[in-house]
Formats: sequence, structure tokens, C-alpha cells
Amino acid sequence: MKVISGGVTEAKGFSAADTAAGIKYKERTDMAMIYSKEPCVVSGCFTSNVVKAAPVIWDKNIVETSDFAQAVVVNAGIANACTGEEGMSYCDKTADCTGETLGIPKEAVLVASTGVIGMQLPIDRICAGVKSLSEKLSDTTEAGHKAALAIMTTDTKEKEVAVTFEVNGKTVTVGGMCKGAGMIHPNMCTMLSFITTDANISKEMLDKALKSDVKDTYNMITVDGDTSTNDTLIVLANGLAENEKIDSENDAFKDFCEALHYVNETLAKKMAADGEGATKLFEAKVVNAKSKEDAKTLSRAIVSSNLSKAAIFGCDANFGRFLCAMGYSGAKFDQNDVELFFESKNGKIKVFDKGNPVVFDEDEAVNIMKTDAVTVYVDMHEGDSKATAWGCDLTYDYVKINADYRS
Amino acid sequence: MKVISGGVTEAKGFSAADTAAGIKYKERTDMAMIYSKEPCVVSGCFTSNVVKAAPVIWDKNIVETSDFAQAVVVNAGIANACTGEEGMSYCDKTADCTGETLGIPKEAVLVASTGVIGMQLPIDRICAGVKSLSEKLSDTTEAGHKAALAIMTTDTKEKEVAVTFEVNGKTVTVGGMCKGAGMIHPNMCTMLSFITTDANISKEMLDKALKSDVKDTYNMITVDGDTSTNDTLIVLANGLAENEKIDSENDAFKDFCEALHYVNETLAKKMAADGEGATKLFEAKVVNAKSKEDAKTLSRAIVSSNLSKAAIFGCDANFGRFLCAMGYSGAKFDQNDVELFFESKNGKIKVFDKGNPVVFDEDEAVNIMKTDAVTVYVDMHEGDSKATAWGCDLTYDYVKINADYRS
Repeated sequence: MKVISGGVTEAKGFSAADTAAGIKYKERTDMAMIYSKEPCVVSGCFTSNVVKAAPVIWDKNIVETSDFAQAVVVNAGIANACTGEEGMSYCDKTADCTGETLGIPKEAVLVASTGVIGMQLPIDRICAGVKSLSEKLSDTTEAGHKAALAIMTTDTKEKEVAVTFEVNGKTVTVGGMCKGAGMIHPNMCTMLSFITTDANISKEMLDKALKSDVKDTYNMITVDGDTSTNDTLIVLANGLAENEKIDSENDAFKDFCEALHYVNETLAKKMAADGEGATKLFEAKVVNAKSKEDAKTLSRAIVSSNLSKAAIFGCDANFGRFLCAMGYSGAKFDQNDVELFFESKNGKIKVFDKGNPVVFDEDEAVNIMKTDAVTVYVDMHEGDSKATAWGCDLTYDYVKINADYRS
Repeated sequence: MKVISGGVTEAKGFSAADTAAGIKYKERTDMAMIYSKEPCVVSGCFTSNVVKAAPVIWDKNIVETSDFAQAVVVNAGIANACTGEEGMSYCDKTADCTGETLGIPKEAVLVASTGVIGMQLPIDRICAGVKSLSEKLSDTTEAGHKAALAIMTTDTKEKEVAVTFEVNGKTVTVGGMCKGAGMIHPNMCTMLSFITTDANISKEMLDKALKSDVKDTYNMITVDGDTSTNDTLIVLANGLAENEKIDSENDAFKDFCEALHYVNETLAKKMAADGEGATKLFEAKVVNAKSKEDAKTLSRAIVSSNLSKAAIFGCDANFGRFLCAMGYSGAKFDQNDVELFFESKNGKIKVFDKGNPVVFDEDEAVNIMKTDAVTVYVDMHEGDSKATAWGCDLTYDYVKINADYRS
């Protein structure tokens, strides 16, 4: 597997576009389109939130019932969630005018929205945006890059990644882009993430690869504990790599899963690190836990704790907060088995040793924590399962951004 | 039932004291004692956190096995949690020197600690503090008040309450004090709360009254989603009101429960309103839910959401965040049944009406939210169960307090 630059336009046959449709933001782009010149096998994961946004309902239906998909239309600024029948009708209209413009069935058009909940979309501006996007479609790396910029809301960085791998002499590419900085605590998958691939793969195997990988990637990140109404992850596979069709768990499938995992994990970590107001990526690695489930529960609890997140922001090795979070996580364990370390590119320091606090050098601990990525490493000494979760620190800017979001 | 001023020294036979033991804070009191001249029936609730502080383990054992309790010794500054065998031995030593000084068995002494996790107590200063406290014991309202001040950590206000009621011509008093501002998300009960009563009541009925009431009071508040390692709630009943012994679910028991509920709910709300960095009490009332469990789950999810809490701070009627929190709470419902309102002493405004956003006056909404107590009122229209949960807003000061707690 090889990491290459670019995102959704790297796989053969995929193009993208961006435009400034004036939906809510002024003076920036706010709509993007992804288009495949060939029909695609499609798989998706959506929010587990009971309050699902209209586009989530639309896309879920497409993924489950359509023969193929060929385009995705995304807008930033308004989430089209909690918008009733009117909101649902705008998904239909968006897909309809996209289908008409591109000459594909509306059932092949996926839609996605992100932004304020409870506002209606300006549908005329959306349809005008669709026309402009259709005219601008391009398969260049730059077009993919601009699409990644157009779907941002409170994100500070665009998020893209692409990799290639070989299947019997054929090069297969998997690329993706996503957005997400607030209301991030996925439970099925997170926010908006779009993966394109030219792999020739059956729907069944694509579903299998995606569903299994989501558990260890998007579902292991958090920014604020809030599972969004709009979480959407879509993978489009158009087959243009011309590899022998992947329709069983063979070596090519394993390579595809590895590539997909790299793309998913990279995008997920980018979202965590770019959490609203965040100054650093906060990683929790739990090893030697009784079960995989326990390891996940414990690592997620650590990165979800407001108190732990504030300590990470303050470079305060206040390890009691991390143990406290583990303690209320729901996993059963004996604190007398546990070792806890802080770790970063600047070093590693033990702060808790099987029930007892360790006397450590505070200056060394601060030095380790004063970086853009800090890991809390926990050895449970109770089994052989492990998991990693990702979050970010809790800062003044998180409060600032969210105390006055709509203005 | 009559609300009176004062706290733990209002019930007959109870005295209290405070002292500056220099445990961690300088230039303020940091230890308190409650003492009953008669042996007490005792009931308690403790944290469900797997990582339990040493005093929690000590007290749990006393409440479950001792014939009676007669004193409580509390320190602020160090939590005596994650402190291993050494920490456990300090509970024993504190109880031992308290028992010796007061002339009671050490098994009648409850201990409680609050503050930084992972530091050992300076036991010599604790024992010196116990001597000083024993000499200062007084049954005045002022002594109770000073005790409530001494147990504070990041609290900005002391928290006390007392009520009286009549049982066949005998006046029974129930009074309490508590502390708690951060690491507040009780799951069994919360932080440190001490209730004294001169009621003559059996242990069985005291347990029954306490366990049932905790679910609707302390377990319905949150500040930051972090369930503490030290949560402790103790009720001492010394019988000096000389009422006929309450040993069944008779009218006197109901009156006792009502008094206890008032004391518990008042203290719980005081903790929520004084959450770290908070500028206001944030209440969620869910009515007409399918079940009591659903109503609790929904109301707790609303007050626990960082995004909702930040919106409350910013006086932003961004109702989508509240619906989003309900949606991921785990309760099943149809958003097309739901009505959502913001309410305060300044008025009430509907913002979401059975699946559809309501066009409302933003200035009116801001005016309603710009108060020291805001309620989100949700009518589920799906049943006849209701619940209320309490929290606070998420502010810059929460981050400030917790990014640099130990210094």
C-alpha cells in the first residue's frame, strides 16, 4: 500500500467540483459535488441518533434499495435536520435537479448537509448550485481539494487522504474527504465522510469491509460527546481499476480492507485533532484489557471526559481524572492492576503504578504534554485485548465557538 | 413541612466544627466535623465508580456493618483516591484518633475527603485537625454554617438547607450540607452530602427513604459528565425528636420522605447551579414521556450535552442541539410528536412543534435565556411520565478552572 497525495478525485473515473451557493456563509464556497462517470456500488453508515436529518433518511434508502449510485451533492451551513416534511422534499428536489443536469436517475444521487439544525434549506440556491457544480466537474487533484474545503463548517483544516495498492498487476486507488469538528461522538460513523475507489468489488464485500472498519475508526473518535443528527459515511466503488472482481474474503479483499482502514483512520484522526477549539490530538491507548469491548469502553471514556480533556489542554498530568473516567466507564477492573503513562514524541512517563501514585518529575510531564499529540497509555494487566480512541483537548475556544454558533 | 434556616446543626443533639488544618489550601478552613451526642442510625449512598476512593470503602463498610455511627470527619483539598494501601490506612488512623478524642468506637466514625486524586493525605495534620475540631464542637447554626464552608473545593457558595415537620405533636428536623461543583455526574449519589435528623426511625426505613429519593435528586444532576471517585451521601438519625419510632410506611414515614426529598433536591440543585464556572442553573423538564425511565434518560441527556450547555451560556435558542441530545440518549421516540420550549421567570417560548421548526422572536428568546435559571421544557406527547434533570452552562471559566486545577 502506498500513500499518495489528493482525495476523492484520485481514483479513476471520479471528478469533483465546488461552488459558492450563498446558502448561509458569504464569501466562501459552501457546496461540493462528487461524480463518477460509471455507476458505482455504494455502501454507507449513518448516525444512530433517533433524530435523523432528512439527507440521512434519503441516503439510507438509496444505499439500501438503489441498484447503483453515481453522484453526491453536499452543502455546508444548514444541516436540514429537524425540518419535517419540507426538509424531506428538499432532498428529493436536490436529487431531482442533479439527476436531470447530469443525466442520471435521481435514485443514483446521494445528498448530504451539515450546519445549523432546524433551518430550512434555500432550495432555489441549492438547485442553482447544482447547475454550477455540474459545469465545473474536474478529475484533477485540485478539484478534489477544493471540494474538501467547500464542505467545512467549524473545521479549520480540510481533510483528505488517498492510497493505492496492487491487485494482480492492476493499481487500485482509495481516496476520501471528510468534515467534522463539533457534535462529534460517532455511534455508527461520523459526520460527513466520502470515500471514492476504482476497485472492482461486490456490494456485499464493500458493505462487509466498511461495517467492520467503522468500529475501529470513526466510532473511536469524540470531540464533545454529542452524536450528530447528520453523521454520514459513503463509499462509492466504480470498478474502473479493472481488477478481478473482489467477491470473497481473498487476498485482494484483505488489501482493500487495509487501504480502506488507512483512509478511514486517517480521516477520523484528522477530525479528532481538528475538534472545535482544539490545540492537540488526545489519544488513549488501552492494552492488555480483559476484552476488546472493555478496551474500547475504557479508551473512549478517557478521551470523552471533560475533566481529562481540560487537563490535556492545561498540560496537567492530573492522572486521577483519567482513572476516574475509566472507573465510571462501565468496564469492570481492579485499580491495583493498572499502570498509566503519558506519552508523546517528547518521551514517556509513568504516573500510576498498580494502585499507587508514582512520584514523577512535573517538568518532564509538562514537556511531554506540551505537544500537538498526547497519548495516555494504560496497561490493564488483565488480558490481551487492546483499543485506541482519539479526541482532543477542551479549550476556551470550544466554548467560544459553541456559545455563539448561529451568528 | 416548614423550611428553616441553617443546616446540619438544626436537628437536636447535633453539633459541628471547622478548622484550618493546612492540608492543601492555605489561609482558609479545610476540615469539618459533625457529631451527635447520641448514637445514630445511619444510611448512605456511594459512588458507582469502579475506582472508589479510600474513604468511600471505609464508610460503605461502616454503614453496612456498624451498629451505629456518631461522627463524620471531612477534609477538603485531597481526595484520598488512587492512593493504595497507604490511603486506606489513613482512613483507619483518622477514625482511630477521632474515636479516641470523642470517646466513641472508631467504627462509629465516618470519614470523607474531596480534592485532588492521587495524592496522599498529610496524616499528622489530619490528626491535629481532629483534635482542634473536637474542642470547637458547637450546636449553633453558625457552627453548621462554618462546617459547610470548610468542605468546599471549587464551590463558590456554601450549600445548606433545613426543614421541620410534625409527628403527633413532636417536631422533627432534617438538615443537610453538601459540596460539589466539578466531577459531578452522580450515579448512585453525588459528591459529599451530609444530612442530620433527630427523627426516631429504623435503619430499614431510613435506607428505604434514602435509596428511593436519591434517584430523583442527586442522580438527576450533572456538571461535566464525570462521575466522581468520592461521591458520598450520609444520613445520620439520632432519634432525639422523640417521635414514635418510624418503622413502617405510615403517615410519619411519608412526611419524613417529603422532608428528606426537599433537603436532597435543594442541595442537588445548589450543586448544579454552582457547577464549575457556571453562570446559571440549566433545568430540563420532560413531560408526557412513554416511561419514567425514558423521561429521565431524555432530561439527563439534555443537561449533559456540551453543545446544549454552551448554547445556554450563549443565550442561543439553538434548539437543534437539544433535540440532537435527546436523539442519541438511547430513548426511542418520534420527533414528529415532540414540542420544545425555552422557559424562565422572563417567559416561555415554543421553538419546535412536532417535527417542524417554529419561527420565533430571537430577541424574546434571548431575554428568556438571559437569567440565572433556564428551563428546557419538552412535551413528548407519547405517554404520561415525567422527569426533571439539573445541570449548568458550559463556560470559559469551566475550562480555566480545570486546565489548571492542581496549582
